[in-house]
Amino acid sequence: MKIIVAGGDGFCGWPTALYLSKQGHDVVIVDNLVRRVIDGELKANSVFPIQELSERVHIWQQVSGCGLSYEVGDVNDYDFLAHIFQTHRPHAFVHYAEQRSAPYSMISRKHAVYTQKNNVLGTLNVIYAIHEFAPDCHLIKLGSMGEYGSPNIDIEEGYLNVTHNGRSERFLYPKTPMSFYHLTKVHDSHNIHFAAKIWGLRATDLNQGVVYGIHTDETRLDRGLLNRLDYDGIYGTALNRFIIQAAIGESISVYGKGGQSRGFIHIMDTVRCIGLAAEHPAEPGEMRVVNQFTESFSVLELAEKVARVAEGMGLSPKVNHVPNPRVEKEAHYFNAKNTQLSDWGLDAHLLTDDVIAEAIEEVQHYKDRIITEQLLNSPDWRK
Amino acid sequence: MKIIVAGGDGFCGWPTALYLSKQGHDVVIVDNLVRRVIDGELKANSVFPIQELSERVHIWQQVSGCGLSYEVGDVNDYDFLAHIFQTHRPHAFVHYAEQRSAPYSMISRKHAVYTQKNNVLGTLNVIYAIHEFAPDCHLIKLGSMGEYGSPNIDIEEGYLNVTHNGRSERFLYPKTPMSFYHLTKVHDSHNIHFAAKIWGLRATDLNQGVVYGIHTDETRLDRGLLNRLDYDGIYGTALNRFIIQAAIGESISVYGKGGQSRGFIHIMDTVRCIGLAAEHPAEPGEMRVVNQFTESFSVLELAEKVARVAEGMGLSPKVNHVPNPRVEKEAHYFNAKNTQLSDWGLDAHLLTDDVIAEAIEEVQHYKDRIITEQLLNSPDWRK
Repeated sequence: MKIIVAGGDGFCGWPTALYLSKQGHDVVIVDNLVRRVIDGELKANSVFPIQELSERVHIWQQVSGCGLSYEVGDVNDYDFLAHIFQTHRPHAFVHYAEQRSAPYSMISRKHAVYTQKNNVLGTLNVIYAIHEFAPDCHLIKLGSMGEYGSPNIDIEEGYLNVTHNGRSERFLYPKTPMSFYHLTKVHDSHNIHFAAKIWGLRATDLNQGVVYGIHTDETRLDRGLLNRLDYDGIYGTALNRFIIQAAIGESISVYGKGGQSRGFIHIMDTVRCIGLAAEHPAEPGEMRVVNQFTESFSVLELAEKVARVAEGMGLSPKVNHVPNPRVEKEAHYFNAKNTQLSDWGLDAHLLTDDVIAEAIEEVQHYKDRIITEQLLNSPDWRK
Repeated sequence: MKIIVAGGDGFCGWPTALYLSKQGHDVVIVDNLVRRVIDGELKANSVFPIQELSERVHIWQQVSGCGLSYEVGDVNDYDFLAHIFQTHRPHAFVHYAEQRSAPYSMISRKHAVYTQKNNVLGTLNVIYAIHEFAPDCHLIKLGSMGEYGSPNIDIEEGYLNVTHNGRSERFLYPKTPMSFYHLTKVHDSHNIHFAAKIWGLRATDLNQGVVYGIHTDETRLDRGLLNRLDYDGIYGTALNRFIIQAAIGESISVYGKGGQSRGFIHIMDTVRCIGLAAEHPAEPGEMRVVNQFTESFSVLELAEKVARVAEGMGLSPKVNHVPNPRVEKEAHYFNAKNTQLSDWGLDAHLLTDDVIAEAIEEVQHYKDRIITEQLLNSPDWRK
């Protein structure tokens, strides 16, 4: 299968491209490399040094012998996108090419406008390019579990059957996202849902949980294939921060009480889910929604888990609490469904002590690269 | 009260600015005049000749002696918007400054992208400007009844209480809009709802029905104050088209069977609703939603109504049916609530035979201006 991985130079995109390539697909990475530029803007970095895209694609070709190429450009440039579609005629388009940090979108007006422009208009271009050049191409679009917010009812997979005054309707699940970034994913879903209806677009909308994990089977093959690992207050996740803090002997800092519950998924399962979605394309006119996570934890549970594993390794991190820069409920009902993944037969990798211990060890090898003042530099949502 | 009317050169904005000015408010029109440029792009026009903004503002000042000024610029230009807020320190910001035609948004990819960029990012700028420069300013935002689509349950006012698996939540009403334009209004509502939560923004989101009517009390005062009237397949409504077709002796053309039901409102009530919203500001942190229409009709009912009135005037229009260029349900459940308007005590102007007859007469005075090939030039949603 010919598959485009847009955003294929990023944290999820890179290992996805390798996995799909290894599975025998003919993979083309499309990326504007802006994530590397943003590292410069934020004076942040990845814990692990990552190779230039050209170099790591070359390494993969040498190591694996599998098909992988790349094109540098922006999905917001429709001439470029048209060229990609006309040249490669993809069967599937995996769309990671979005600004993916909630804190980044909350830094300033410019960052909010950039995020909404890049994500919403970029996806609109992708929808039009599929319609114009490859109407049978399956759009595999990355959303986020964060789109749902913290409703007081069960979180279903994308749709909700509502009975009201004796009549019934099946709606897109009503979402209450809590950042200008998460809002873009909701806007995208509405746009895609409409395109499926009017043009018969095939789409899979993957509402992904928080992704963690250092290696996949493919990135393990050569140090030059290492994936990025973010730990700063803008692009890093809470779990990454806790692992880094434990590894360098700092206190583990929890936002507020840490009662916020979230769905999680290992990067090895992220890439397998994309493979499963590609092998099971949505029907024409269908926007299929999958909640792509395998386990749930509260932030405090994560902190305590990391602290316990670190202790077993001879480290002694304390867990402390810092003011929450975000506006979010600290304690809330959380019961999210993820039945599609089981239906596809995904045998999940879980957040075991070994996974945490390996992550701490790997980070320790690169601890000199860590810029500690970046650990808690999230913008305040209220400003 | 100091009130900005953004989009104040348009069909709803112009009479709103005059009405608020007449009510004693200090009104500043903000407009980039793009609607006049689009007339050029589409080779379309208003049935009634409209004066340049500078001229008609001058006429109003002479005729009424009331406060009204204008500033030409774009809400997507944040420097300009910041200047507006810093200079005028508004108590209310009436936001009509959006591309408002569903067919226009469906002409091509460029038109879809322009519409989403202009509307969503423009509104994001407005939200930020209020937060930065006038946090107590009341945002009065125009939405559309078309955002709801045609759900099989009652359409409530903006929110829906859902009970699911024994638990309950109050959500933004889940919407299924059927154009890239209507989608922008849904995106806006989500963005505004979030800003209300995190920053305490005061907002009123007015989901307006189809607006009709030629004059308001204010535009009647001088022919130089005449409002625009669109009849083309892009910016004209079905009702306007029927009136023009009857006036010039053509057949009244209904899209499909004409079973589509919609909410309607007279332009005289549109302007009064804005006045009522301004006098009853939303609370800090509240996004209040009002369904702003006064009556409902199916498209076929409208056609038959216009045909009957025209017959009484000695005209003899036939009603015929043409293929529907839109993707929409031709027959559907429709029961939309509009209780807020009654709570505010709005005594509605209805679509009487006299209103239709006056419209036909007024159009007949200007029938030489009508470009008949523009009447049915809507793009096909499926292309």
